Amino acid sequence: MARSPDGESVITRAVRILDAFGPESTVLSLSELGRRARLPLATTARLVKEMTRHGLLDRDEHRQVLIGTRMWELAERASPVRDLRETALPYMGDLHAVVGHSTQLGVLDSGEVLFVERLTASGSVVNVTRIAGRLPLHASSAGLVLLAHASDGLRERVLAARPAAYTRHTLAEGQALRTELAGIRRRGFAFCPGHIHPDATGIAVPVRRSGRVVAAMGLVVPNDDDAWTFSRPLVLAGLALSRALG
Amino acid sequence: MARSPDGESVITRAVRILDAFGPESTVLSLSELGRRARLPLATTARLVKEMTRHGLLDRDEHRQVLIGTRMWELAERASPVRDLRETALPYMGDLHAVVGHSTQLGVLDSGEVLFVERLTASGSVVNVTRIAGRLPLHASSAGLVLLAHASDGLRERVLAARPAAYTRHTLAEGQALRTELAGIRRRGFAFCPGHIHPDATGIAVPVRRSGRVVAAMGLVVPNDDDAWTFSRPLVLAGLALSRALG
Repeated sequence: MARSPDGESVITRAVRILDAFGPESTVLSLSELGRRARLPLATTARLVKEMTRHGLLDRDEHRQVLIGTRMWELAERASPVRDLRETALPYMGDLHAVVGHSTQLGVLDSGEVLFVERLTASGSVVNVTRIAGRLPLHASSAGLVLLAHASDGLRERVLAARPAAYTRHTLAEGQALRTELAGIRRRGFAFCPGHIHPDATGIAVPVRRSGRVVAAMGLVVPNDDDAWTFSRPLVLAGLALSRALG
Repeated sequence: MARSPDGESVITRAVRILDAFGPESTVLSLSELGRRARLPLATTARLVKEMTRHGLLDRDEHRQVLIGTRMWELAERASPVRDLRETALPYMGDLHAVVGHSTQLGVLDSGEVLFVERLTASGSVVNVTRIAGRLPLHASSAGLVLLAHASDGLRERVLAARPAAYTRHTLAEGQALRTELAGIRRRGFAFCPGHIHPDATGIAVPVRRSGRVVAAMGLVVPNDDDAWTFSRPLVLAGLALSRALG
């Protein structure tokens, strides 16, 4: 692999450049991009030029840099989550239409929940999830469902890592988490009132393919006395999606 | 930029590797990947190792190579089409629920229509579009809508390129295309019975942001006497989405 004078490969530097972009920073100046990627300006300019030539990056009318449509196309058309997303979307759409609250789909990736799809309702309750965003497994309802069905090894690593609390309701203590995970497996869904934000309740169900849990589908609804009633349509939608996945 | 002995950059070779994957070839052996990317096996192995280390690629349980979840995450979370897709999805979901046929969203990219979202109905009519798939502008209803609202320069280039016919109904002749594009601008939608496949009718409407056409939303319905009736809900959904985009 070709390397820079300090031994870093071109691929490493290209990934650092791509990683500088995020949901809140979709358009960056060359200097801001270099600063975030921790690369000299000349190196940044050279790499951006090369990556733009291939459509991995793009320049807008003010010469600011953004992720290229071609980068999205290369990642998406053979994406490992494409099938899951495409099968799930109609079920998520139905659920969203029936309950009128944000609906999301998350998968386990590198010890976190990675959200691969989300449908939002305008004016809905606060929801910290984003498409291609991540949350810790212990904090979110989708994460708890994935953790409840994960390997013993991963479960013990999460429990040993002393997970952080978002609110006073976050399950951040080992025994409470263990009890909740057993409850999720028994009950068939995770119910998390105020675990991430006091105003919101997360609810999530497992999504199975050939019997194995491959994702979690969730709702974010207001944290009130009615929140519990949304578990029924969510469980039904989860069963329907699992059936469609086979 | 670091270059191989034949002067090709690492980025160029990495893009060739990513480009070897597609909707029909999401999992490749190392040798098949090298063959498709037109790279020596040793170069392919070295690049795959490096790209896998960064999560751009992944290896499955049989050591076959696939696009990595991290690649998808880097492309998606700051994607230039993310906002459009996320705003469009609930409207597409409503439309899909009401009409019960495949619903898709396409944008103009490099003189083609690139489909950024699709909702499919099981058992629906034949539909050649795919998420992150492309179609020529003249052949698809979404492409015709985008072409009808594109610059004069692009329109003349497409007309000059002697577009290919998929069926005997494809508009592959200059004057017929010009007449149709004017009709689409006047009527507000494209109606394409049997243009791509004899059994399917594509219908598409423009999606506007600040008055400018930024995408086309379409339906694929059976090619029969009722096809025309689907234009009404589609036009309504297009207006609603354009209003939401502002």
